[in-house]
Amino acid sequence: AVYVNGKFCKDPRKVSPNDFFYTGLNVPRRTSNRLGVNVTLLTADSIPGLNTMGLSLGRVDLAANGGLNPPHHHPRASEIFYLIKGTLYVGFITANPTHRLFAKILTAGDVFVFPLGLIHFQWNIGSRQAVGFAILNSQNPGVVTTANTLFGAVPAVLSDVLAKAFQLDVATVEYLQQLPWQNP
Amino acid sequence: AVYVNGKFCKDPRKVSPNDFFYTGLNVPRRTSNRLGVNVTLLTADSIPGLNTMGLSLGRVDLAANGGLNPPHHHPRASEIFYLIKGTLYVGFITANPTHRLFAKILTAGDVFVFPLGLIHFQWNIGSRQAVGFAILNSQNPGVVTTANTLFGAVPAVLSDVLAKAFQLDVATVEYLQQLPWQNP
Amino acid sequence: AVYVNGKFCKDPRKVSPNDFFYTGLNVPRRTSNRLGVNVTLLTADSIPGLNTMGLSLGRVDLAANGGLNPPHHHPRASEIFYLIKGTLYVGFITANPTHRLFAKILTAGDVFVFPLGLIHFQWNIGSRQAVGFAILNSQNPGVVTTANTLFGAVPAVLSDVLAKAFQLDVATVEYLQQLPWQNP
Amino acid sequence: AVYVNGKFCKDPRKVSPNDFFYTGLNVPRRTSNRLGVNVTLLTADSIPGLNTMGLSLGRVDLAANGGLNPPHHHPRASEIFYLIKGTLYVGFITANPTHRLFAKILTAGDVFVFPLGLIHFQWNIGSRQAVGFAILNSQNPGVVTTANTLFGAVPAVLSDVLAKAFQLDVATVEYLQQLPWQNP
Amino acid sequence: AVYVNGKFCKDPRKVSPNDFFYTGLNVPRRTSNRLGVNVTLLTADSIPGLNTMGLSLGRVDLAANGGLNPPHHHPRASEIFYLIKGTLYVGFITANPTHRLFAKILTAGDVFVFPLGLIHFQWNIGSRQAVGFAILNSQNPGVVTTANTLFGAVPAVLSDVLAKAFQLDVATVEYLQQLPWQNP
Amino acid sequence: AVYVNGKFCKDPRKVSPNDFFYTGLNVPRRTSNRLGVNVTLLTADSIPGLNTMGLSLGRVDLAANGGLNPPHHHPRASEIFYLIKGTLYVGFITANPTHRLFAKILTAGDVFVFPLGLIHFQWNIGSRQAVGFAILNSQNPGVVTTANTLFGAVPAVLSDVLAKAFQLDVATVEYLQQLPWQNP
Repeated sequence: AVYVNGKFCKDPRKVSPNDFFYTGLNVPRRTSNRLGVNVTLLTADSIPGLNTMGLSLGRVDLAANGGLNPPHHHPRASEIFYLIKGTLYVGFITANPTHRLFAKILTAGDVFVFPLGLIHFQWNIGSRQAVGFAILNSQNPGVVTTANTLFGAVPAVLSDVLAKAFQLDVATVEYLQQLPWQNP
Repeated sequence: AVYVNGKFCKDPRKVSPNDFFYTGLNVPRRTSNRLGVNVTLLTADSIPGLNTMGLSLGRVDLAANGGLNPPHHHPRASEIFYLIKGTLYVGFITANPTHRLFAKILTAGDVFVFPLGLIHFQWNIGSRQAVGFAILNSQNPGVVTTANTLFGAVPAVLSDVLAKAFQLDVATVEYLQQLPWQNP
Repeated sequence: AVYVNGKFCKDPRKVSPNDFFYTGLNVPRRTSNRLGVNVTLLTADSIPGLNTMGLSLGRVDLAANGGLNPPHHHPRASEIFYLIKGTLYVGFITANPTHRLFAKILTAGDVFVFPLGLIHFQWNIGSRQAVGFAILNSQNPGVVTTANTLFGAVPAVLSDVLAKAFQLDVATVEYLQQLPWQNP
Repeated sequence: AVYVNGKFCKDPRKVSPNDFFYTGLNVPRRTSNRLGVNVTLLTADSIPGLNTMGLSLGRVDLAANGGLNPPHHHPRASEIFYLIKGTLYVGFITANPTHRLFAKILTAGDVFVFPLGLIHFQWNIGSRQAVGFAILNSQNPGVVTTANTLFGAVPAVLSDVLAKAFQLDVATVEYLQQLPWQNP
Repeated sequence: AVYVNGKFCKDPRKVSPNDFFYTGLNVPRRTSNRLGVNVTLLTADSIPGLNTMGLSLGRVDLAANGGLNPPHHHPRASEIFYLIKGTLYVGFITANPTHRLFAKILTAGDVFVFPLGLIHFQWNIGSRQAVGFAILNSQNPGVVTTANTLFGAVPAVLSDVLAKAFQLDVATVEYLQQLPWQNP
Repeated sequence: AVYVNGKFCKDPRKVSPNDFFYTGLNVPRRTSNRLGVNVTLLTADSIPGLNTMGLSLGRVDLAANGGLNPPHHHPRASEIFYLIKGTLYVGFITANPTHRLFAKILTAGDVFVFPLGLIHFQWNIGSRQAVGFAILNSQNPGVVTTANTLFGAVPAVLSDVLAKAFQLDVATVEYLQQLPWQNP
């Protein structure tokens, strides 16, 4: 098997409309998990026709009363978020040295932008399930969920590093490191 | 006044969350026009925070029984189309020499990809208004509606050129050229 | 067989000067066809050394008294057109909403620019064969000849779509769809 | 004042060799702070000639016995790190879903790569001050220090969001949020 | 006066077809100079509509019996060269460590490719004036004529540097440095 | 064997920290050769993890009293040079028509920028070995050493071409062409 940057292309003679197609993105996803979130991300893996097109699309379901798409960033994409149902508190934080939070409460029909590579989150503050769409300008944007990446790394990051970085004691860090860290 | 490629940036000290925000994209648009279509395109003009981010988002409303987003292309963007309501016949056509039509009937929850620079369309074949979202990887993608561009150009393209290109007689071309050509 | 975005490279040890070479671009091409046009496009397919170089070059022969390179666009390239013989009426049309025609009569030695992704054409208004060169900034620019793509698609686009888009009756559209559509 | 994406250029007639020059990067920096780290980052702000050149260079001083450049990422750059003095434990963590830690102990003369947008860190495990150089392929790479960004944001991120994301109780989060968060 | 990377744009309302137009590229240029060469390069400076389009076009006139476009490279462009009249010996040389010469004798109608950033030349070995066109994929490609740049620099490069690099004695270098170095 | 633009990727399951690692860049290199220079360039060939990352790093050792990294350029990269030991005279020369030399004497801790594609050099004017680091924004930047490329090409460039370009007599050129041309 050989590997290239990104994905191989299909034989053009064998490409069909279904290679540009996906169905069922309107079906609500289950959010009965610790975070109350479920992300369906359509990349060139799920829609072959996205290969080299520079786009992907995600559906984000957030459970009522606190479903959370926790702080994360995309190493290779900017994002537009469009909320079609529910009420969310969303935001992103600028880089050093300002760490300025740009936050907003969104209701259905609202749009918010998360700039390239900055950490952002969506938090359901409403009393019913919320649904939004995340639009990304890469067919392979990547998702780095901050807490999961740092405390759920395999093998584990040295606990002293995380304790000093987060101003936590080592015991707390090691407690966190043995927890399960579910990805959205 | 001076002009740069794209848009000037705001003074970073004066940027606020509202520069990354748009509201009301869930409000149905009026489609009572000849084509039965209404496109709301959010670019860096409507959301300043999209400047340099490489993304835009459009809402497409299509009237029941034949609303049409007529054949067009985006000179600077690929597209993902996501249908949230209705039933559409959509497609794109490949470049010379194959002119192969990739078409599909979409229902709510379906996704289709239109590759960079290729002509595509959406046609409402259902009995109620349809609504979809067009996702584009440029903050200034441009829209070239094919028929409008060629027959509605100002000043007019020489009728002989269009007659020969479209295998129409000159009288037909000149008749078309004096019609109004509403953009979606 | 495997496929990558673009073309595979040759084994560097087997590359020779001929991989960067093409001969005979000065030979007049036959233009005895319906449109009176003949385009020879040199891409990475005809000159392997163009692979990854971001350039291609086309020769355009236009028959006397009305040879036409009909309206078309390049999904992946801007163009400089250089006329070495004859007299042409050329132009491009800007995107929505302006549809402004930028046109010019060119004689030998004139240069005109067609911006990325915009529809443009060349029309021989002189009494002898014209020859120009099209310079494109992609080794695989693509050509979408507008009328051919829409009316010559395989399978055919629904005639209702084209009738509504072009403000033609369905019978005219269906007549056009069964015509041959020769590519330049 | 007007703003463009990036920085304005100098009048070419007034550019001198000093616009491409910086002195004193060999001078040890003070690391007597909580993290035991001091980063000097040379971007187009400090060397005007870097504007549009796609490169920047940082010096990283790490205090003996635990100086830490805490987990962070660059939203717009890949990095090569080169250690010239000391002994470090360094690493980066891959994106969801693997969260795989790629870590290594470095001694003087060692080089390590941190891929675009991934979280990484450097930790001084030796008994004397360490010095390394961070090489970044953007003249404005940005630095997002993870803990500082999330717990030191202004205004503060809702504590419920961070508590749920990090599996901490709200009181701990609020305690962390009122601490000072010094940037390296 | 302010400067941006590249050039400012014109007010779109004031743009006319002439901004995309240049005339007279078919007029032979005088080549009665030491090198027997005359290059007319059309960039965004001469055709405003080329701004941001990623293309430029040059006419190269070479005097009979030895007119020379001396070894040079373009720091920001690949090139296709198209010969319309005459007989040339052309070539480019690959980078370290191979320094392989790819050379060819061209006659009218021949095309040759010079890859991005490699040193290349055109030498008229025929008995009449030759004319070719250089096609470059940047609106500001730059030209670095090798000998002129090194021996005609202002202020002069230290003669010891050039002597050692070229394996010439210092007197020869200093003799060369006080010669005039006409650019093509 | 098949070839792609750049390098194939490793099987992600087999990637280890050593793929992002290089050791021994602090070891002085031998400079006992004609030019008194030794360049160690780490690209995606020596560090597989640099593949697609857009960066490379070189160590440059220059012998005392005249070690020279002779005039050269990188066809695919800008450069930051950082001097950690010794005293150098460095410079680059701008493109036609100005040929302006931007030069500077550097001592340990100094930084200098060499813009994309411009010819530059480093010359040891101190009495001890000098060491610097070259930082390049490509994983495959290429090095074109000017004199070596032109006078050491295989097969040889026609001596008439070089004689005319450099204003040398043909005998001198042919003498130079049969000399060995060691690359740094």
